[in-house]
Amino acid sequence: MSEFLSARYENMKPYVPGEQPKDMQYIKLNTNENPFAPSSAVAKVIKNFDVEKLRLYPTPENKELKVALADYYKVEIENLFLGNGSDEVLALIFMAFFDKEKEVCYPDISYGFYPVYADLYCLKKNEIAVNSDFSIDVDAFIKTEKNIVIANPNAPTGMAISAKEIEQIVAANLKRLVVVDEAYIDFGGESVTGLVNKYRNLIVVQTFSKSRALAGARFGIAIADKKIIYDLEAIKFSFNSYNVNRLTEAVALEAIKDEKYTQKCVKEVIKNREWLSTQLKNLGFEVLPSSTNFVFARTNEINGYELYAELKRRGILIRQFNKERISEFVRITIGTMEQMKTLVLEIESILKK
Amino acid sequence: MSEFLSARYENMKPYVPGEQPKDMQYIKLNTNENPFAPSSAVAKVIKNFDVEKLRLYPTPENKELKVALADYYKVEIENLFLGNGSDEVLALIFMAFFDKEKEVCYPDISYGFYPVYADLYCLKKNEIAVNSDFSIDVDAFIKTEKNIVIANPNAPTGMAISAKEIEQIVAANLKRLVVVDEAYIDFGGESVTGLVNKYRNLIVVQTFSKSRALAGARFGIAIADKKIIYDLEAIKFSFNSYNVNRLTEAVALEAIKDEKYTQKCVKEVIKNREWLSTQLKNLGFEVLPSSTNFVFARTNEINGYELYAELKRRGILIRQFNKERISEFVRITIGTMEQMKTLVLEIESILKK
Repeated sequence: MSEFLSARYENMKPYVPGEQPKDMQYIKLNTNENPFAPSSAVAKVIKNFDVEKLRLYPTPENKELKVALADYYKVEIENLFLGNGSDEVLALIFMAFFDKEKEVCYPDISYGFYPVYADLYCLKKNEIAVNSDFSIDVDAFIKTEKNIVIANPNAPTGMAISAKEIEQIVAANLKRLVVVDEAYIDFGGESVTGLVNKYRNLIVVQTFSKSRALAGARFGIAIADKKIIYDLEAIKFSFNSYNVNRLTEAVALEAIKDEKYTQKCVKEVIKNREWLSTQLKNLGFEVLPSSTNFVFARTNEINGYELYAELKRRGILIRQFNKERISEFVRITIGTMEQMKTLVLEIESILKK
Repeated sequence: MSEFLSARYENMKPYVPGEQPKDMQYIKLNTNENPFAPSSAVAKVIKNFDVEKLRLYPTPENKELKVALADYYKVEIENLFLGNGSDEVLALIFMAFFDKEKEVCYPDISYGFYPVYADLYCLKKNEIAVNSDFSIDVDAFIKTEKNIVIANPNAPTGMAISAKEIEQIVAANLKRLVVVDEAYIDFGGESVTGLVNKYRNLIVVQTFSKSRALAGARFGIAIADKKIIYDLEAIKFSFNSYNVNRLTEAVALEAIKDEKYTQKCVKEVIKNREWLSTQLKNLGFEVLPSSTNFVFARTNEINGYELYAELKRRGILIRQFNKERISEFVRITIGTMEQMKTLVLEIESILKK
């Protein structure tokens, strides 16, 4: 830390992304990436990209892409905000709407970036404990008077609550903002994007990193009431006017249009997830019910860290969180069937030892 | 504005990027883009890009690109911070280092984003007036005890101060941070990247949007002492871990390696700039001495806004700032010689009326 850093960051604990070791070729099941390539339409648009255009700034409005997204999500373009990944979208939402007066709360077990944003913006960390079965405590969120951020399905548990329950939370108090982070929604959750025209206190965040296999292109969106989007645009134009580059624009446009391929990949991931869950249960694991592209599981046979470390030695990366309540769990990204089979064999072999 | 926006943004005035009207095909000389295409190596790397890789997050360290940049700038990779355009780099610098105690000052006539960042982070706007000839008041910056942001060459004046003068400012008080925004440095200024190992209170910011013709790919960097970079990385990992996407990484890597092409474009731009400056002076304009890829000029014959509006009607976009001290000026981006000739003919025709 330099002597120049603002004193407000004294206690900052930055987010720690999943490791990307380079010492060997790993089966990478630790950052919830899609095991399948992006759409062939994405490949085509990159191959034919008019590179001369890169000399020009993107249009700050990203109009063409917004029109396609509006069509897909059945909203107007004024309901859409685009970002350099959904992490940026979330970072700007925290920046815009939460402060010492307008506090925010989120589940104690959820996406690790929420407390990091809270630190960054010097917000009080109001955590609402998930239930003993790791489901989100819907009643507590209905009752709180604070702004809310919920991941649905939740991470790293993988568990979803229903659209009905989200609506109950949103409708219970229109004076607070409810941010629903739907990063994993396409793998089995019920999206509430359809509610943004009904409630002016709802923001739905989605990403193209998961179901659309574009983690490397960085693209995320927020869908909300026009006034909310207006605020986010004002913040964006005060932070980085051209936050979505021309290549990402082109790629996201093709991805949103190729819904057929997205659904094909999603189906395959779900199939592999159900297969893996069954196998893990057969091996004695408790597997939380997942609506995502990962499973969260534990066993009495071996603790979370040991299983993670042993699998890493065998060339498979999974994720384990050194955090209260969940340290015995491992989070495993759903890969190809071949990867899942290798994983199960290695876990069997580890448990036999 | 929604009822949910934090009260601290009440007076926020977002940055206004140069217009991008779609009603007709304009000669676009209003956002200081490079008139030439990016390097052919950039085109090649995009054409051959392994799209399957987009399913994976970028490596948050951007190691390969940092190694190439370290080689180019003769620093270590720990001296480098990468961003989604230099606007993001600047936004994160303001976020990290400036607050109510650690105030910042900048020239009154400079890049329009500095006061916007000040607003965004609720900072006092300490402006130091440029001299009557629009040059930066070096003595005033030597004397101030506040942190400093200077664009060198400055925008929209185009005027540079020497590396010696920057060093005088940096050396005068090691307790404050000096940020030198070198967005336009390749067009004639003296870079101070060589000083980052000598002074731990210096940050140099550069962009690939101008001399490397990659405005549409969004890539900017900061070069500074390792402790400063460490702080910026902590802020980045608290805001958006993967801020530079895989396509931009690939493109920036090729651009930094093709220095020969960059220099060829720069030479052409400088030649066209000198030609345009002479022509404008012959037409009675005062043209500030430019070390950038634009000129800042005024004439008694027609005021800045009228000239801007008349040229727009004729299909040429330039920029004019409705701001005290400079409203009579126009800022004209240097284009191809053909564009410059068309521009001069149109200005002649406007002045004759």
